[in-house]
Amino acid sequence: MSRITGTFLLAAGLALGAAQVGARTDDQPVGGPLKVVVHVNVPESGVQGAGLKNVTNILKEAPDTQVEVVCHGAGIGLVEKARTDHAEAVEALIKKGVKFVACENTMRQKSIKKEDLLAGVGTVASGAVEVVRKQQKDGYAYFKP
Amino acid sequence: MSRITGTFLLAAGLALGAAQVGARTDDQPVGGPLKVVVHVNVPESGVQGAGLKNVTNILKEAPDTQVEVVCHGAGIGLVEKARTDHAEAVEALIKKGVKFVACENTMRQKSIKKEDLLAGVGTVASGAVEVVRKQQKDGYAYFKP
Amino acid sequence: MSRITGTFLLAAGLALGAAQVGARTDDQPVGGPLKVVVHVNVPESGVQGAGLKNVTNILKEAPDTQVEVVCHGAGIGLVEKARTDHAEAVEALIKKGVKFVACENTMRQKSIKKEDLLAGVGTVASGAVEVVRKQQKDGYAYFKP
Repeated sequence: MSRITGTFLLAAGLALGAAQVGARTDDQPVGGPLKVVVHVNVPESGVQGAGLKNVTNILKEAPDTQVEVVCHGAGIGLVEKARTDHAEAVEALIKKGVKFVACENTMRQKSIKKEDLLAGVGTVASGAVEVVRKQQKDGYAYFKP
Repeated sequence: MSRITGTFLLAAGLALGAAQVGARTDDQPVGGPLKVVVHVNVPESGVQGAGLKNVTNILKEAPDTQVEVVCHGAGIGLVEKARTDHAEAVEALIKKGVKFVACENTMRQKSIKKEDLLAGVGTVASGAVEVVRKQQKDGYAYFKP
Repeated sequence: MSRITGTFLLAAGLALGAAQVGARTDDQPVGGPLKVVVHVNVPESGVQGAGLKNVTNILKEAPDTQVEVVCHGAGIGLVEKARTDHAEAVEALIKKGVKFVACENTMRQKSIKKEDLLAGVGTVASGAVEVVRKQQKDGYAYFKP
C-alpha cells in the first residue's frame, strides 16, 4: 500500500469518528439548544408562579431553549381557566414557544374538559409518563420548581 | 493496496461505527423500556400516595417501565410497617415488579431495622447515592412526586 | 498492501473506537465519578439542612462525586451570610470540594451582593439555566432535597 492510500484510509477513519461524535451530539447536544421538562404537580400558586418565572429567566439567558411544562395531579390548576392565578404568564410563554401540556388521567379524575384549559395548552395521556419520556427519549433535563 | 483490502478496511470501520452507535443506544434506550427513579424524601402521606398513583399510571400507560422508588430521610416512612399509610399500594406495586429500596443511613439514624420494613422492600447503603447512580450509571429518568 | 500495514490500520481503527468509547464515557461515566446538581429553591431551613446532609452522605459513600449545589429563588438564603442556618456545614462542604453557586438573577431581585454570600460561594447568571446545563451539557444527575 502506498503511504498516500494509508493516509487516506486513516483520514476516512477519523472522519467516521467525527461523524459518530456528531451523532452522539444529537442526543446529548453539547452545542445544541438546551431542553428541559418542567414538572408541575403542586397546587401552591406561589410555587407555580416561581416556576413560570424560572422559565422566563431561562429564555432570557438561553432564548432557544426548548421548554415543556407538564401539569398533572395537584398541579393541573396552573393551566385551568377557572383556577389558575397565572393565565397571562402562561399565555405569554406559549406565545414565546413554550409548550404546556395537561395530563388526561388527571383531567378525567377531576372532570376537567379540554375547553376548561387555557388556550394553547395541549394534553398528554399521562403526565408522569411524559415527564419520564422527555428525559429518556428526548434527552431533556428535569426541573422541579 | 488492493481495492478489496481497502473495501474490507472501510467495512471494518463502518462495522466499528455501528457497534458504537449500538453501544450508545443501550445507555440511552430510544427503543427500549422507560426507566425511572422515583425520589421519596418527604413525610407527607398525601404526597407519598400521589407518588404511588403516578407509578400506577406510568405502568398502565407503559407497562414495561422499570421503576425504582428510593425512600430516604423523612420519606422512609412510606416503607415502614409501623408508619406507612400505603402498605397495600406498595405491596401491590412490588407484585407488579416495581422495586422499592430504603436508605441504610436513614435506617441507622432512625433505628429502623430491616424487619420493620414492608415485605419485599430492599435496602441500599445510601438513598441519595442510589438516586444519583440510577440516573448516571443506568440511564434512569428522575421523578419527584 | 502488506499484511503488516493492514494490521496497523486495523489497530488504528480499534484505537479510534476505544477513544470514542472513552469520549462517551466522559459524558455518561459508567466507570467515572458520579456527578450531581443539587437544586435548592426552597426557603425551609430543615429541607436545606437535609440537602446538605444528603451531600455529606453522598461524599461518604462515593468520595470522588462531583457535586454542585445551585441556590436560587427562595433557596438563596442557604448561602447568604445574614440568613443561613447552615454556614458551618456549607463551608465544610466547600472545603471538601463541593461547589456552591448563587443565582445572579435572584441576587439582583433581592438586592444581595456578592459580599453578602458565604465565603467560597460562586455565582452564575441564571440558577435555572445552570440546573439545566449541568444535566444536559455536563451529564450531571439531578437531585432535589
